[in-house]
Amino acid sequence: MSINVLAICGSLRAKSTNHGLIRYAQAHAPEGMKIHIADLLDVPFYNADLDEKPAAVKTLLQQISQADALIFACPEYNYSIAPALKNALDWASREPDNHMLTGKAVAIMGSGGGMGTSRAQYHLRQVCVFLNLYPLNQPEVFSNAFSGSFDNNGDLIDERIQGLVTKQLDALLSWHKQLNR
Amino acid sequence: MSINVLAICGSLRAKSTNHGLIRYAQAHAPEGMKIHIADLLDVPFYNADLDEKPAAVKTLLQQISQADALIFACPEYNYSIAPALKNALDWASREPDNHMLTGKAVAIMGSGGGMGTSRAQYHLRQVCVFLNLYPLNQPEVFSNAFSGSFDNNGDLIDERIQGLVTKQLDALLSWHKQLNR
Amino acid sequence: MSINVLAICGSLRAKSTNHGLIRYAQAHAPEGMKIHIADLLDVPFYNADLDEKPAAVKTLLQQISQADALIFACPEYNYSIAPALKNALDWASREPDNHMLTGKAVAIMGSGGGMGTSRAQYHLRQVCVFLNLYPLNQPEVFSNAFSGSFDNNGDLIDERIQGLVTKQLDALLSWHKQLNR
Amino acid sequence: MSINVLAICGSLRAKSTNHGLIRYAQAHAPEGMKIHIADLLDVPFYNADLDEKPAAVKTLLQQISQADALIFACPEYNYSIAPALKNALDWASREPDNHMLTGKAVAIMGSGGGMGTSRAQYHLRQVCVFLNLYPLNQPEVFSNAFSGSFDNNGDLIDERIQGLVTKQLDALLSWHKQLNR
Repeated sequence: MSINVLAICGSLRAKSTNHGLIRYAQAHAPEGMKIHIADLLDVPFYNADLDEKPAAVKTLLQQISQADALIFACPEYNYSIAPALKNALDWASREPDNHMLTGKAVAIMGSGGGMGTSRAQYHLRQVCVFLNLYPLNQPEVFSNAFSGSFDNNGDLIDERIQGLVTKQLDALLSWHKQLNR
Repeated sequence: MSINVLAICGSLRAKSTNHGLIRYAQAHAPEGMKIHIADLLDVPFYNADLDEKPAAVKTLLQQISQADALIFACPEYNYSIAPALKNALDWASREPDNHMLTGKAVAIMGSGGGMGTSRAQYHLRQVCVFLNLYPLNQPEVFSNAFSGSFDNNGDLIDERIQGLVTKQLDALLSWHKQLNR
Repeated sequence: MSINVLAICGSLRAKSTNHGLIRYAQAHAPEGMKIHIADLLDVPFYNADLDEKPAAVKTLLQQISQADALIFACPEYNYSIAPALKNALDWASREPDNHMLTGKAVAIMGSGGGMGTSRAQYHLRQVCVFLNLYPLNQPEVFSNAFSGSFDNNGDLIDERIQGLVTKQLDALLSWHKQLNR
Repeated sequence: MSINVLAICGSLRAKSTNHGLIRYAQAHAPEGMKIHIADLLDVPFYNADLDEKPAAVKTLLQQISQADALIFACPEYNYSIAPALKNALDWASREPDNHMLTGKAVAIMGSGGGMGTSRAQYHLRQVCVFLNLYPLNQPEVFSNAFSGSFDNNGDLIDERIQGLVTKQLDALLSWHKQLNR
């Protein structure tokens, strides 16, 4: 039996290299792990004045609920988190008792400028403290979007980073098991 | 002649206490300062795939361009920045040469839980490094949204915090002048 | 059989309220946990030019090695970590393969100004990522050093915070077991 | 007339590449700037129980007082600030009214692993908020200690980083003037 992992990407751009990271992850998930990819295109900003949850939000929350563990593909915009990723977590956190997030294992990967989105990733880790999520410490995945590691479609073609992603997926599986055995 | 200050609030909720902070600021701006309030309700997530800038984005960018200084009302969602505020800055940062932000004086205020949104404000300050914005160091405005400081409409009624806000506006005016004299 | 926990305090002052927190913790450790307190008074700054490890460093490293889990009492100096605490971790990190720290459960508590040392604690959590330590997400212990919660000797006398400390110790014991069962 | 700049290095090791950065800065200060280098080797940990300030602390505090602006050479130890640098600032902050630090312009540079000490530098920037120091936003100086940029004595030999350091010194001089004209 496989664990069910939901990958959430902070970039909305179709050819984003962060999408490329999770497409690669999905295609190379280790035995015992199945990865689904969330669609944030129609998820609006959280606003307590909204009377009803839009359909895209309902779908997202159901996927998060059903996930055993999570992957965050974390772009860096202006030295911090992409709003679409943060907003997805904000929606989930508003559900009663934080039930759908608490205690889950998390892997964080990101593609961006020279620092590989590290500045945004440390902000995201602080968010995880409140949400009671457990991000992997190691390996961290920082990849450079501008050095030929991705092709024009945003697909990951660099072998070193490919190896790092699959190593992180193995670590996520082990970490999930360690937390839940 | 007055300087023109644009206030941007990270909460979209009409009765948000963070709106209350900037409404109070607007009504009590010191002589020599006029405060306008941005409307983020129709500003979508930044997405490089969008062909054209929506009207609400164009208005926002024009207001930012024309502002001499900025005020950020910074809620804290899950220990970090509200996506709507971050997204407004991300849109502005995508304009050529970062011209509309660079070098401007900034005041940050926030209303939230017991820490007064401080965790989000330090993330926002890191964003300001990249955007080459100059946030005031002091006074910091951390206000508690749940201790009777605001009425049911989100209006600021606590005298201590009212005094802190006007002190911060005075400091912003001085800081703008110090940077531009 | 009890687990062996080492508590490390970032303040060197005898009557520090942060010492008060760990003295209280030591006296109220749950069944199944024994808490020792490290002495940092004679631990010098890490310096790669030193030929030999001072005796106080050797003792500290041995205590860390033998600990099953760690408690950090984290003061806040100027919005970040107290150097003595950071330095203790830096010494430990220089030992081969990071063996003495990796994978251990950690509880973080702190006493300080109005924010209860939270700003320092989030910096400390970032340090834990590199050291592969696993800090508890909840409960966080933020206590005010200036509101009568401690007596003149720095002893913790506030019942609410006493309860929070013992709750955190219970959580640390569970977290250690979860990581190691 | 020249401005007087004090450079403080967080590493105590004689051949540290961070010392190399400030030696280079000292030798290439722009016209109108003179750089002195602080000596932290005998500065002990701040401890409120100490009856008297050690001589090395008195010297440091006098140098900080007399400085018009500051340079911090910021190593990264375990994803945060080197204790010796943080401790120097903690000592200065304890003097009455924070007079010796408040309002001064600051430049931050660092040499370390692949991220060039950026993680430590953002923590240091948060410290500057409380101390009411004004760090330059740009250019940031992140240099890699392990890629041939420094010789065996820790001297900076990489032309690109040499250029970045002198560019930062020019920016520091302008920033000081902008704040004090």
